[in-house]
Amino acid sequence: MLSRKDLNPDLLRAEYAVRGAVPARAQELEAQGRRVIYCNIGNPQAFVQKPLTYLRQILALVEYPALLDDPVLAGRFPTDVARKARHILAKHPSGTGAYSQSPGIAFVRQAVADFIARRDGIPADKEHVLLTDGASKGVEAAIVALLRDRRDGIMIPIPQYPLYSAEIALRGGQAIPYYLDEAHHWQLREEILATAIATARAGGVRPVAIAVINPGNPTGAVLTHEEIAMIVRFARANGLAIFADEVYQENVYSELRRFVSFARVLHDLRETTVPLFSFHSVSKGFLGECGHRGGYVELRNIPDDVMAELVKLQSIGLCANLAGQIATYVMVCPPVEGEESWPQYVKERDGILRDLRAKAEVLGRGINAIEGMSLEMPQGAMYGFVRIQLPPEPDVDVAAMGAEERRAYEAKRDSDYCLRLLEETGICVVPGSGLGQVPGTFHFRTTFLPAAEEIEEVVRKLGEFHKRYTAPAARAALKPQPV
Amino acid sequence: MLSRKDLNPDLLRAEYAVRGAVPARAQELEAQGRRVIYCNIGNPQAFVQKPLTYLRQILALVEYPALLDDPVLAGRFPTDVARKARHILAKHPSGTGAYSQSPGIAFVRQAVADFIARRDGIPADKEHVLLTDGASKGVEAAIVALLRDRRDGIMIPIPQYPLYSAEIALRGGQAIPYYLDEAHHWQLREEILATAIATARAGGVRPVAIAVINPGNPTGAVLTHEEIAMIVRFARANGLAIFADEVYQENVYSELRRFVSFARVLHDLRETTVPLFSFHSVSKGFLGECGHRGGYVELRNIPDDVMAELVKLQSIGLCANLAGQIATYVMVCPPVEGEESWPQYVKERDGILRDLRAKAEVLGRGINAIEGMSLEMPQGAMYGFVRIQLPPEPDVDVAAMGAEERRAYEAKRDSDYCLRLLEETGICVVPGSGLGQVPGTFHFRTTFLPAAEEIEEVVRKLGEFHKRYTAPAARAALKPQPV
Repeated sequence: MLSRKDLNPDLLRAEYAVRGAVPARAQELEAQGRRVIYCNIGNPQAFVQKPLTYLRQILALVEYPALLDDPVLAGRFPTDVARKARHILAKHPSGTGAYSQSPGIAFVRQAVADFIARRDGIPADKEHVLLTDGASKGVEAAIVALLRDRRDGIMIPIPQYPLYSAEIALRGGQAIPYYLDEAHHWQLREEILATAIATARAGGVRPVAIAVINPGNPTGAVLTHEEIAMIVRFARANGLAIFADEVYQENVYSELRRFVSFARVLHDLRETTVPLFSFHSVSKGFLGECGHRGGYVELRNIPDDVMAELVKLQSIGLCANLAGQIATYVMVCPPVEGEESWPQYVKERDGILRDLRAKAEVLGRGINAIEGMSLEMPQGAMYGFVRIQLPPEPDVDVAAMGAEERRAYEAKRDSDYCLRLLEETGICVVPGSGLGQVPGTFHFRTTFLPAAEEIEEVVRKLGEFHKRYTAPAARAALKPQPV
Repeated sequence: MLSRKDLNPDLLRAEYAVRGAVPARAQELEAQGRRVIYCNIGNPQAFVQKPLTYLRQILALVEYPALLDDPVLAGRFPTDVARKARHILAKHPSGTGAYSQSPGIAFVRQAVADFIARRDGIPADKEHVLLTDGASKGVEAAIVALLRDRRDGIMIPIPQYPLYSAEIALRGGQAIPYYLDEAHHWQLREEILATAIATARAGGVRPVAIAVINPGNPTGAVLTHEEIAMIVRFARANGLAIFADEVYQENVYSELRRFVSFARVLHDLRETTVPLFSFHSVSKGFLGECGHRGGYVELRNIPDDVMAELVKLQSIGLCANLAGQIATYVMVCPPVEGEESWPQYVKERDGILRDLRAKAEVLGRGINAIEGMSLEMPQGAMYGFVRIQLPPEPDVDVAAMGAEERRAYEAKRDSDYCLRLLEETGICVVPGSGLGQVPGTFHFRTTFLPAAEEIEEVVRKLGEFHKRYTAPAARAALKPQPV
């Protein structure tokens, strides 16, 4: 019989809190008939968000092209939808049924390159685009390719989306944390990067790449051109590749910010040496098509022989799923003004984005009105990383603890908080320790994806719970087990 | 700028010949307007095979459920198709749009367990089923989970499907080859296993698992109950997990053999300790839905805490794509007699399998009629592993070579053969060295997926080419470069 000790120790070490102990307990409660509000994961269509009609009509026609041959059926679809489905099938006759080339369908990669060129006003090359099963598999490929051995490290933001720490642990590398500055709108500051990399080098770690999430997950911060240029210069000075996680590029709510891509900044800086892996996905934005696992990675400043190795890596799993590839095509090649689908597409798109913006506001204002909680208003993405004040435990001296002991103690505290919150209210969030936080601070990540009324309910329950949890009598009763 | 030396050396080492140098050259030729017959990959729908109407109708309805609400449209689908689509959406309201639980949709896993129970007459548990992006990702997960460090090894058949050697190299483990006996119908013999594992142990390798492909890829051999029981006893005696690649379970053509699962044999032997990972896929069989990347791994004799680690591994990539999960559901839950779709389903299913059986025969008889070529008649799967006689080169003394030098020399010879074949005839096959072969023997793998007329053309051209290639004058001119 296998036991845990027979398993890859890197697997045992990897942690992915978005689907960790709290969500696992939530599933148990739900199986017992309890109502759970899943605020742990950016999964829009699990809530109120409807798929875009345009996208789904095209997928239905590509899955079952006989619909196009039946005049009665075909007549029930907008003419441009039928035309686009025919176009896809003409360009790629096997549709969703056959493996594609390993990097993905050539005309879809061309459409991705055209999308980037249109978005940023810069050249883009389809030979440097790989279609992937969601952005996650692109990030996995980049990490697998660049980690040579246990001394190699990748800089990751703290707080971060835990895909990064999980993949780095699983592939046997070192995470090099750099803190985002909560006191200054989660800003990414050069001196913090410099300190982080110096500390890593002093500890014998060789930094090979820096991961940046823009718009930020979980912070919601949106980087300016200047901030990105700083990161690019830092990467060049330190010989790092950049992993630019740009999956929330359509999710910018602040009037004061707009999305700027790393590709555009590389171009503006005439930067021809820093390798860039930029990731995008059909799962976020206004599509929210998480289940289709579609996405791409675009690469810059990568020589052909390295591209060939990345294509080989992709080829071992054959190719990304074809429905996801076609969803990616529809994402980068939406209807245009004047086409029959355009008005409904615009209505659905704008409705989803307006709704997300409004819910970000509801969450932010609500949280900030709770005593002992605060939240930087999300400029983008789908999350609030909520700071919570937990009173010190009188008989515990964190100052006397080593770094690792303190981390474990504080992780226990915020996990306990989130588990209690779940048990008492049915609200499922991710403990801050699962995404990373400055020692001595406590957070949780929540999405703002439930319906607005539900978010209001979440906020109200959070306020009531937090008061109960931090009341002195309750604290005594609820004190976590010693670690 | 990144260079190859900055990449993971395990990635550089991994080779996946099914999409290696020969297919890459084929794509170049095709781009130049040359006709290529792709016999390198088991990708049925890239050829003449049509998707099953039943499956695609259900996928179209699940992608765009509004079709069900329109009485005119819904009326164009068979009643049982509409009913099954409604059932899927009732059980899983977010359809293909949201992430599922990490192991896959619960009711689909239950359907997989029911399928196994029905197929084998044994109990099966949905908590030991994980839905994966094709079987490849299940195999990847098993290898990632079980390789602890560079000394761990996995036994693989030679010849093999090169997913195994590629994943083992990529994850930093050791492949332990065991030869299948070509002289005896590619039989898997216990003494060969015993020698292979003893050699590995003597070399400091710790064997942790044995991979078995049944029906065989590329051999086409179908294992008997007795052979599987031998492997199970061998695994128990040696403390190995079994990776049972059973993706061709529906592709058995010989009247003398039927598919027997490892799960069934474990049950019959009352074997409760040997861990089993069995893989299945929607890509092969009569579905041939390679592009949907659907599949599952069923696990036996795995304790809960190990299962939890496998689920965690799956969770890092969130979940398998949902269209593939639903295709898997349809595979394990086909229409039943009496339903409106049944007659067409049976007609399509039987047509595809009859066609494959006939083409296996055309290929086998044709190849065996060529002087200097031979082929064990495929009992199953989709391939012929064709033995070719290449005359020794007069000025080369293989006996004087070391093992590695000889391997490289012989790989160069069969690669050269396959590249010439491609250049002269447009036929794209995989060199035997990419799948493994006994030193001194040469092979290539071809599918029998093209149309029957095309297979006849392939056979004819193979015969003409082989004669030219092995003619003494041609041999002198075509002699490969020294390695």
